[in-house]
Amino acid sequence: MQITINDLVDFTRGAAFLGTGGGGDPYVGRLLLKQEMENGRTITIMRPQDVADDALVVPIAAIGAPSVMLERAPKIEALEKALSVLEKKLGRKADALSCIESGGINATLPLILAARTGLPVVDADGMGRAFPELQMVTFNIYGLKASPFVMTNDRCESVTFEVESNHFAEQLARSTVMAMAGAAHLAIYPMSGRQLKDAGVPGTLSLALDIGRAIVEARRGRADPVRGLLDFLRTMPEPRHAVVLAEGKVVDIRRETRDGFNFGRVLVQPFSDASAVPAEIVFRNEYLTVKRGEAFLAMVPDLVCVLDAESAEPITTETLKYGARVKVVGVSVPPVMRTGAALATFGPRAFGIDSDYLAIEGLVPA
Amino acid sequence: MQITINDLVDFTRGAAFLGTGGGGDPYVGRLLLKQEMENGRTITIMRPQDVADDALVVPIAAIGAPSVMLERAPKIEALEKALSVLEKKLGRKADALSCIESGGINATLPLILAARTGLPVVDADGMGRAFPELQMVTFNIYGLKASPFVMTNDRCESVTFEVESNHFAEQLARSTVMAMAGAAHLAIYPMSGRQLKDAGVPGTLSLALDIGRAIVEARRGRADPVRGLLDFLRTMPEPRHAVVLAEGKVVDIRRETRDGFNFGRVLVQPFSDASAVPAEIVFRNEYLTVKRGEAFLAMVPDLVCVLDAESAEPITTETLKYGARVKVVGVSVPPVMRTGAALATFGPRAFGIDSDYLAIEGLVPA
Repeated sequence: MQITINDLVDFTRGAAFLGTGGGGDPYVGRLLLKQEMENGRTITIMRPQDVADDALVVPIAAIGAPSVMLERAPKIEALEKALSVLEKKLGRKADALSCIESGGINATLPLILAARTGLPVVDADGMGRAFPELQMVTFNIYGLKASPFVMTNDRCESVTFEVESNHFAEQLARSTVMAMAGAAHLAIYPMSGRQLKDAGVPGTLSLALDIGRAIVEARRGRADPVRGLLDFLRTMPEPRHAVVLAEGKVVDIRRETRDGFNFGRVLVQPFSDASAVPAEIVFRNEYLTVKRGEAFLAMVPDLVCVLDAESAEPITTETLKYGARVKVVGVSVPPVMRTGAALATFGPRAFGIDSDYLAIEGLVPA
Repeated sequence: MQITINDLVDFTRGAAFLGTGGGGDPYVGRLLLKQEMENGRTITIMRPQDVADDALVVPIAAIGAPSVMLERAPKIEALEKALSVLEKKLGRKADALSCIESGGINATLPLILAARTGLPVVDADGMGRAFPELQMVTFNIYGLKASPFVMTNDRCESVTFEVESNHFAEQLARSTVMAMAGAAHLAIYPMSGRQLKDAGVPGTLSLALDIGRAIVEARRGRADPVRGLLDFLRTMPEPRHAVVLAEGKVVDIRRETRDGFNFGRVLVQPFSDASAVPAEIVFRNEYLTVKRGEAFLAMVPDLVCVLDAESAEPITTETLKYGARVKVVGVSVPPVMRTGAALATFGPRAFGIDSDYLAIEGLVPA
């Protein structure tokens, strides 16, 4: 499959949806990608099954607080530098790139580097969404090492890490990205084609494109694009549980940038009833939980997405504004994201939420 | 020159003196060095003029809060790992090792690695004392780059840095050493033999050994070993200004471990006069200033050393105790440490002290 310049708006819209509010605003990624593709470059998206078992696949990403990345866009030269330093360390060239997360700006960065280098991008990632920490990937859960990995800053200065534990990798990377003024570039989790097939979540880039297209399609045909999007998600080849959790006006947002993350919470008051208990969304880079009063309506790793009520356009945590009219949508994740090992790594307790994981289909039936 | 196992006590005592209270307790380094030398290994100390201009010289050091290093001694395997990762990065083997600082534990670590590897150690360093930050070296002042450099932790995990500015190198290294639980190992400022001759402070290892011997010598012959030590310093081939700044009992110590450093201040009350204004010593890893009331008696980069009043044994900031009977000694540094560029990097203002540099010979004449 090829991604052309005409796909970019749909692709980045779908990536914003999967980004569940975090992963960085894909608008920035879209501009960078557009620039590369206007030079006539195309991007080849490979199916995982078409990647050779012994190929070297290198995931590419940005790390840092999304609010910082909005001010200081990632630099393609710094992505190139991260890849080349890692290649030199490994003593071989990459055969393909991939995404760590197919949500937010990190869905676009491997494509940008692919347009520059001519390398293909594999249609798979480590979560089928966005998460704030480097060990919160199926790559980690299914035994791969983040290390060796390379971080670069805007000036193409590099730091190369060789550590055993992926959790320690996250700690070192987080302290380094803070010393790098809050945002940096990564080439990380270098793996074989075989390892990506075994440990990745397949089809997530094409899912982002399909979601982006479904939203446009739904806008054309229906009065309610959000309903159209949910219908699409419920009838995919591997269907998802997809429901509206809350709708109304954003009446309060608290934000804090701390420890290299964006933390906060949002209150959504129903349009029709100003005295009703508002829905409360908590986020840390990504939207994590939705509650009404004490009752959970959805929780991580299921997707929580805030959409513009009229257009179904996804809204990130750092661009969400007081007074916005929104629909809050919850979507189930594939079974590979709900195993015991997966939930131990990116379930609610991994985010300090004092609850066992409760699947969205039990909390809010269709 | 060879350093033998019989020199170790004198050498590390002299290194503790030049460490001006910081640089880590050389007792730990002495134990490690003794262990290596009991295996029959000897250490060759080369004069700088005997090093080939195109030789690769690699300074070796520990980084972190000395109080942490007292609990977790540096690991020789981690020093080896730092050197080997840097050698691989540079694509060549080191021909010799050197010290960043000849004070404290960092005077011993290159010797320990030399005993293990058989490499010689060059008799020169980057300050002829100890300082808390990586850019506070003549190597930096005279144009050399800290980068590429490698940091390793106790588990031999490594981080390799490639950055332009030595000040940024310090910032990244400091945040990484904090993520590594407060102490780590470094191979840094890789340089040619020519560069070391041009930018280093020569003769500082043999000076440490000479100072250690002078203290023992003074103990044998005189009632006051401190006076004997000062006499030695005043009559060396390149004599120093060396004076007693204060003597008495330690009546207060405040300590704080913060941001990867040991901060604090010490009050020394004269033995004879409990109502006199005590001398106040401020430290950040190293002793930085001595004041009585508002008047400075000595300030960085001149050496401030706290010695046991009876034995002239140097006392580090983290082992100094309430009630200790001490003499506080000030010693001038060579002219290369007092140029405008040098003072901008490690003069009083570089430590947040609101004063121009005042040379010790003007503050306290002999």
